[in-house]
Amino acid sequence: MPKPATRKLLASVAAGAMAIASPAIAQDVSMQEYIDLFEPLPALPPIPSGTTMSAERIDLGRMLFFEPRISSSGVISCATCHNPALGWTDRIPRAVGHQGQVGDRNTPTVLNSGFLEAQFWDGREPDLEGQALGPIEADIEMAMSLEEAIVRLNEFEIYRDMFSAAFPGEDDPVTPQNVALSIAAFERTLNTPNSPFNRYLMGDEMAMSEQQVRGMRLFADSGCVACHNGPALTDSNFHRFELPGSTDEGRFVVTGDEMDRFAFRTPTLLNVAVTYPYFNNGSVDNLHDAVQLMGDQMLGQEFAEDELDDLVAFLHALTGEMPRLEIPALP
Amino acid sequence: MPKPATRKLLASVAAGAMAIASPAIAQDVSMQEYIDLFEPLPALPPIPSGTTMSAERIDLGRMLFFEPRISSSGVISCATCHNPALGWTDRIPRAVGHQGQVGDRNTPTVLNSGFLEAQFWDGREPDLEGQALGPIEADIEMAMSLEEAIVRLNEFEIYRDMFSAAFPGEDDPVTPQNVALSIAAFERTLNTPNSPFNRYLMGDEMAMSEQQVRGMRLFADSGCVACHNGPALTDSNFHRFELPGSTDEGRFVVTGDEMDRFAFRTPTLLNVAVTYPYFNNGSVDNLHDAVQLMGDQMLGQEFAEDELDDLVAFLHALTGEMPRLEIPALP
Repeated sequence: MPKPATRKLLASVAAGAMAIASPAIAQDVSMQEYIDLFEPLPALPPIPSGTTMSAERIDLGRMLFFEPRISSSGVISCATCHNPALGWTDRIPRAVGHQGQVGDRNTPTVLNSGFLEAQFWDGREPDLEGQALGPIEADIEMAMSLEEAIVRLNEFEIYRDMFSAAFPGEDDPVTPQNVALSIAAFERTLNTPNSPFNRYLMGDEMAMSEQQVRGMRLFADSGCVACHNGPALTDSNFHRFELPGSTDEGRFVVTGDEMDRFAFRTPTLLNVAVTYPYFNNGSVDNLHDAVQLMGDQMLGQEFAEDELDDLVAFLHALTGEMPRLEIPALP
Repeated sequence: MPKPATRKLLASVAAGAMAIASPAIAQDVSMQEYIDLFEPLPALPPIPSGTTMSAERIDLGRMLFFEPRISSSGVISCATCHNPALGWTDRIPRAVGHQGQVGDRNTPTVLNSGFLEAQFWDGREPDLEGQALGPIEADIEMAMSLEEAIVRLNEFEIYRDMFSAAFPGEDDPVTPQNVALSIAAFERTLNTPNSPFNRYLMGDEMAMSEQQVRGMRLFADSGCVACHNGPALTDSNFHRFELPGSTDEGRFVVTGDEMDRFAFRTPTLLNVAVTYPYFNNGSVDNLHDAVQLMGDQMLGQEFAEDELDDLVAFLHALTGEMPRLEIPALP
């Protein structure tokens, strides 16, 4: 959600751009007004009421994130598809899971996912707690029932101790609910500060190149910012678009609402340069083509090549510092 | 290979122990003579003539080790089975690879593997360079031809640059041979210093508990040290034994020599407490049973329960410091 103070400006800029579909940069908007359109990334995402990011939960969640024994093959963990070496995604078009089965959709990055108000491409879960358990159970992902996963975790004394420490006072703390709470607590630490764009928003005028600043202005003026806004550059809302070759009905599968057919959640643009390939089926492998398609589909606008270059340069400024972590030692 | 000075003593202790199959601890061998039976772990394994562990090769090898794009599914890397979170092995009985296929053998750890003079359970490769490419090509592991792997790596400018830096002067340095040299250079850094046993060998008498010292003496006196010797506690040689339930013919498959039927390379015992399950098919999941089986099969000796406890306590003293590394950022 954009800051209230900028919502009006945002709406007028975006609506104007979308209406006239013009690539011209509005000269009457000062640089500060551009900056006000955006929100710098906070150090932490919102922490839902009723939970905590205690060190004990984060440590446990980190181990569970890398834990393959909660998959039926014994070799697939959250980190298999959300691979820290690959921008916390997998850099293949569609996810590969249990027995090599290929899923229907591209793996979203976990980076900054705590800032999203809807999880999965179709938004079928509202938060990370809701998201965390799905892939464990999914037949084509980790393919293990939660009951079996809990049995396996309970076999390790260190896990029993760590759950007790993370959920003090609970008699039987090794539960699916607590697995979800721990993984979500860990995931809320996976944020990427210090991108050139974020430093620019904080006043460092040298953080972005001239081309990147031009790209930022065009991003605002052409209307991209109408959906890609807020600290993670997503409205966490659903928008229809026709991706060539995709028959995925998107959010319609969740809601059954005709308005949602072919609608997908706006993805974050943070770290978009390192989270290729793009779109729900991962069919576009470079930013140039992705931006061109978005211009055509969402804005009815054919960007000139130099404009595409500027927009892509801006998108590269959204790559922040990757989380630094050592691989945990599992029991 | 044991130090020449200790070989004679070693042979006499081991031969005596194996001949009489007695669990009695020889009282006439002083503690220093026990210590002389063993070799502390050097900081680096032997580096083969004609290669180098340059920083450029190690950095490149680290990335290649975590690189899943050189598998046909796009999700399996060396680190999938040699998982840093799991003692650089997978902690399942037999390796799971491409399309979930299950291999015939247990995954050996990469830790300290530079100290081994034979690679794979059957010793079909003499060194890490020879080992590195096998799993990329194996249909049930990464399932990618080396030709295709080279094409994929060549698509990334950063890999082209890193190969050039690691192999200066070569016109076309992205080759299978150089992939192997780089991965092997990285693997030679994956050693585990500072185990209680190693500190004990270096003079720290408090590093091992009394029980662990008893276990060490029994390990020597009963003859375990006849095969488990040298800095990695393996002779890198092949020994026949009958593992209940296993039909794997072992080194016979490589040599066709009747003497090698059911013979396997002596595994390293370093970090054995964190590299379960055990034996060529991973069918034994705890040290107690593994030691009992070895006593029965290799020494013709039935250890008493308190002896088994002592030996297992000693084996726990072989766990060193895991390599500390951040997950590399891949292109």
